[in-house]
Order: sequence, then structure tokens, then C-alpha cells
Amino acid sequence: MLKSGDIFADVPERLADEETKILAANPGAVVERIVSTGQASPPGFWCDQPSPEWVIVLQGEAGLSIEGEPGPRSLKTGDWLELPAHRRHRVEWTSADPPTVWLAVHWRSGGAN
Amino acid sequence: MLKSGDIFADVPERLADEETKILAANPGAVVERIVSTGQASPPGFWCDQPSPEWVIVLQGEAGLSIEGEPGPRSLKTGDWLELPAHRRHRVEWTSADPPTVWLAVHWRSGGAN
Repeated sequence: MLKSGDIFADVPERLADEETKILAANPGAVVERIVSTGQASPPGFWCDQPSPEWVIVLQGEAGLSIEGEPGPRSLKTGDWLELPAHRRHRVEWTSADPPTVWLAVHWRSGGAN
Repeated sequence: MLKSGDIFADVPERLADEETKILAANPGAVVERIVSTGQASPPGFWCDQPSPEWVIVLQGEAGLSIEGEPGPRSLKTGDWLELPAHRRHRVEWTSADPPTVWLAVHWRSGGAN
């Protein structure tokens, strides 16, 4: 039985916290759907990840700050970027209506997970 | 300089062959954009890949046959599926107007490319 689905199905309209679902996981990388309904990173919090991430906005809009850049990037539907390992970043804002649907690929070093 | 872009930018309207662009490549997996404008797999050709692939249609529509299934799957925008290694498959048809935009994650065994 193949794993399959519609990324725009079952998107919650209101969430207390971001929702993350793993769509595919094989040694080396994981594919996730992330839904945000207005969430942002906590004030002063920067995300520092040990491995690279590739992320695209598939619905909605978001603001993303990346360490070393002069201001947040505005991401609209279709915009993607690659975050190298340990490049600190934070989500400044996400759209709630419609919810923001992200697709993320997280590499896993060592070929595990 | 971060790598970034808009996946719906610079989508060619007519192509002699499918167009594949690597958006991100790190040990373990590669992220690609594939654009089809009506292309299909050659008659009788089945694709047999040594490692898993996760694929989603982000624009347009396509028909995908998977060995062992009774008929082709119709994929519309947002539909995704995971193809295990060596699960044979073929593209039966793709929409030309609008062009079909696929996002594919190809795992690479051994953590190398």
C-alpha cells in the first residue's frame, strides 16, 4: 500500500500550536507538512538546527527572519528557500486565513531517522 | 547567500522534454522541480529507481501508473505519494495548460549523491 494524500486536505482552521505531520521518512531526510494559523516564534527565540532544511509555502503567507539579513523575508505561496545547518531563523508571522501550509524537507545527518 | 526562489516562476509553456531543476542537494536527498507540458513516459517504459521518491503535483494534473495497481491514478494539484525503491511506475499523461509542476524528493542511499 503506497502512502499518498492531498496536502490541502484536513488543514485545521484554528490551532493552539503549529501542527507538524510527517509525510515521508527515509534514511537521510524527512518530508513534513506544517500548518500555522497565525503562530510565530516566541519573542527572542531563534531556531538553530543541526542539519539543513528546505521549505516552501504552499498556501498562505509568512514572514521569516534569517540571522544576518536586514529584515524579515515575506514568503507567499510558491516561495521556497534552503536553510543551511545552524543558520538561525525565526518565524515572525503566519497567515491565519487561509492557514499557512508549509512543506519542509529536513535532512538527517548520518543517514539515520 | 541563501538559495531561494518561487517554484511557479519561469515555468516554460512548451517543452520538447520534461525539464528538471535541482533546487536543493545535500547528502541523503535531493529536491527537484519537474515541469511537464503534456509529456508522458514512452510506450512500454517503466521507471525503476534504486531509492525512494516522494512526489507532489503543485500545478496542473497528471496520470501515474504504478505496477500492481488496477489503473492509473489521477493526480491533481496537492496530491502526493511516496514511491518505494524499485516500485515501477510510469507517467501516463500530464496537463499542458497549465503546465504540470511537480516537486520531487529523491533519497540517495549511502548519504552520497
